[in-house]
Amino acid sequence: MNVNGKRYRTVWFKDGTVYLINQTLLPFEFHVHEARNHRDTCTAITTMIVRGAPAIGAAAGFAMAQAFLEAPNEAFHTYLANAKKEIESARPTGQNLFYAVRRVYDYALKQSNPRAAAVTEAQRIADEDVEHCRKIGEFGNELMDDGFKVLTHCNAGWLACVDYGTALSSIYVAHQSGKKVFVYVGETRPRSQGAKLTAWELKNEHIPYCIFADNAGAYIMKKEKVDLVIVGADRIARNGDVANKIGTLEKAIVAKELEIPFYVAAPTSTCDLSCESGSVIPIEYRSEGEVIYQTGFNKEKQLETITVYPEDFRVTNPAFDVTPASYIRGIITENGIVKPEEVGGLSLNT
Amino acid sequence: MNVNGKRYRTVWFKDGTVYLINQTLLPFEFHVHEARNHRDTCTAITTMIVRGAPAIGAAAGFAMAQAFLEAPNEAFHTYLANAKKEIESARPTGQNLFYAVRRVYDYALKQSNPRAAAVTEAQRIADEDVEHCRKIGEFGNELMDDGFKVLTHCNAGWLACVDYGTALSSIYVAHQSGKKVFVYVGETRPRSQGAKLTAWELKNEHIPYCIFADNAGAYIMKKEKVDLVIVGADRIARNGDVANKIGTLEKAIVAKELEIPFYVAAPTSTCDLSCESGSVIPIEYRSEGEVIYQTGFNKEKQLETITVYPEDFRVTNPAFDVTPASYIRGIITENGIVKPEEVGGLSLNT
Repeated sequence: MNVNGKRYRTVWFKDGTVYLINQTLLPFEFHVHEARNHRDTCTAITTMIVRGAPAIGAAAGFAMAQAFLEAPNEAFHTYLANAKKEIESARPTGQNLFYAVRRVYDYALKQSNPRAAAVTEAQRIADEDVEHCRKIGEFGNELMDDGFKVLTHCNAGWLACVDYGTALSSIYVAHQSGKKVFVYVGETRPRSQGAKLTAWELKNEHIPYCIFADNAGAYIMKKEKVDLVIVGADRIARNGDVANKIGTLEKAIVAKELEIPFYVAAPTSTCDLSCESGSVIPIEYRSEGEVIYQTGFNKEKQLETITVYPEDFRVTNPAFDVTPASYIRGIITENGIVKPEEVGGLSLNT
Repeated sequence: MNVNGKRYRTVWFKDGTVYLINQTLLPFEFHVHEARNHRDTCTAITTMIVRGAPAIGAAAGFAMAQAFLEAPNEAFHTYLANAKKEIESARPTGQNLFYAVRRVYDYALKQSNPRAAAVTEAQRIADEDVEHCRKIGEFGNELMDDGFKVLTHCNAGWLACVDYGTALSSIYVAHQSGKKVFVYVGETRPRSQGAKLTAWELKNEHIPYCIFADNAGAYIMKKEKVDLVIVGADRIARNGDVANKIGTLEKAIVAKELEIPFYVAAPTSTCDLSCESGSVIPIEYRSEGEVIYQTGFNKEKQLETITVYPEDFRVTNPAFDVTPASYIRGIITENGIVKPEEVGGLSLNT
C-alpha cells in the first residue's frame, strides 16, 4: 500500500538484503530497515521491527533464503540446519514463521540450484500472502455498501501482512472500487496498535477515519449507527471460536447486542483444526509495563518513555481474548466468506 | 478515607481556609492545596485541583462561606452577590455547585450572624455528603458476599466526593465489615481516572485490586467470574437511564450478556426528574488532546507530557455515554436500593 504516495510492501527482498518497514518507529518515523544477512533478519523479528504473523512469516522465509546464499560450500548443510534453528527461535510461537522456514528449507534442498530455489520459494510465500490478502479484500468488499461506517480494532492491516492486510483489506478494496467508507479505529490499549498503525495506514490511503478511546466503542456503534465491525484473528479454532487481540470479545458482544454484523478477516492458514475450541487456547499475559509506560514524542521531538501510573500499582494485562463463534457472522478468507461453524470442514494447507 | 494511614477528607475548612487534596498531582504526588479566600477556592475548582460533582459542591459551599467572612460591612451585600456569581461561574455545568452556593447564601442571609451561619451551613453540606455516601456504602454492602470480585469503571470513590465515595463506598464498607473483596479497576482512557485515582484510593485502603486496560473488561468478567459491576453516575434521568463516564455503556452491555449484576451508586441528588430520558442528555465531546497527549514521570521523576500519537491524527472523544435503564439491576442511593423504573417516583430535595 502507500506511504507518502509511494507504494510499499511491509517486507521485501533484493540482492541478498531483506528490507523491512521499521514498525517500532511508526507512526512517528518512517524508516526502512536493511537486514543484510539472516542474523540481521532474525534480530529484526526479535526486536519487533516486523510484527504481525504473516509479515513475520515472509521475513522468516527471506531469512532462510539469506542463509542459503550465505552458506559456505564446505559446510552447507550444517550451516543451514543451524540457521533454521536460529530463525525458528526468533519468535517461538509464530505459526507462519515455522511454516515459511520449513517450506523454503525443504523445497530448496530438493532443487539442483538450492540457493536460487530458496530465494524463489521465499518470494513465492510473500507473493502468496499478498494474493490471499487481496482476495480477502475482494470478498470483504462485497459486504460493504457505499457510505458504510466500519469499526475495527487493533491493526489487521497491511503492516501486519506483506500487503493489503486482512480486516483492512476489505476497506482498501472498497475504497479502490470507489465506495465511500468511514472507519472508526479503536485505540487498542495497551500497545495502541489501532491508534498507531491502523490510523497511520488509513491516513496514507486518504481514507477518512477517526481514532476513539476503546471505552467509546459501544457509544460510537450506537450513536453513529456503525454498519459493520471487522477485525483480524490470531488463531481460529475448529468450532469457529476466534482468538484475537484483547478487546475483540468486548466489541463482539456489543455488536451482537446492537445487531451490528461482526466479521473476522483472516487467511485460512489462521485456522488451527487441531484446536477443538477457543477454550483450550492459552491466553498470553504480558508485562505490567505495557500499561504503565507510554512512549511518544517529547517537546524536543525525541522519542521518550514516561511512567503514566506509579510502578507499584497492580496491573493485569491479558494480551488476547477468545470470541465465541456465536458472536461471529462470518469469517472472510481468501477462498470466500465462511460461517464459523464451517471452519471445521475447511481443507487447509498446513 | 486513608492516605498513608492518615484519615482525610477531599476538602475541608478551617479558620477561613479551604484545604483541598490536589487531584491534578495524583497518583504521583500527595499535596494538600490551601485556598485562603473565595477566589483561591474558585481557582482550585477551575483548575480541577478538586473534581467530582459532590466534592466541587462542598468546595463551592466553603467558598461562599469564605466570601461571607471576607465581605466588608460597608458593602456586605454587593460583595456577596459578586462573589456568588464568581463561584457559580467556576464550573458552569455543576449541579451540586449551584445547589451548595445558593443554600449557603440563602440560609446565612436570614440569620442574625450571617458570617458564622455561612460557615455552619457550608460545613453541614459537606457533612451531609459524607453521610449520604456512607449510607450508599451500607446499602451497597448488602449486595456483597465475602470473597466477591467487583469490577468498577472510572473513579466513583471518595476523591470525587467529600469522603467514602459512591460506587467505591460499598467496597469500603464491605472491607471494613471484614469481607474480602477484590476489585478490578478499568483504566478509563482517555483521562485514566480508574488507573490514577481509583487504584490510588484502593491501595491506600489496603484493598486488593488490579488495573486492566479497558479492552480487557469482557475477558476479565468472564474469565475471573466477576460477581458484580458497580459504577457511579453523572446524571440519572426520570426513566432510570444513567449518564456516566464513557465506557459505562460498554461494560453494562457486557455485564448483561454475561449475566453479571450491574449496579449504579449515586446520591438521589444525581437524579434529574426534569430530564425525561437519557436520549435528551447532551453528550460532551472533549479535545483530541486528551487521547493524543499523556502525562507521567520522566526519568528525572519530573511530570512531563508527551505526544503518543501524531497531532494530525483524527480523534473523536466523547466524554460520557448513556446506559439505558434496562441494563441496570439497581441504583444504590442513600435511601436504599431502587430499581431504575422507580426513579421517577422518588421525592427529592432540589
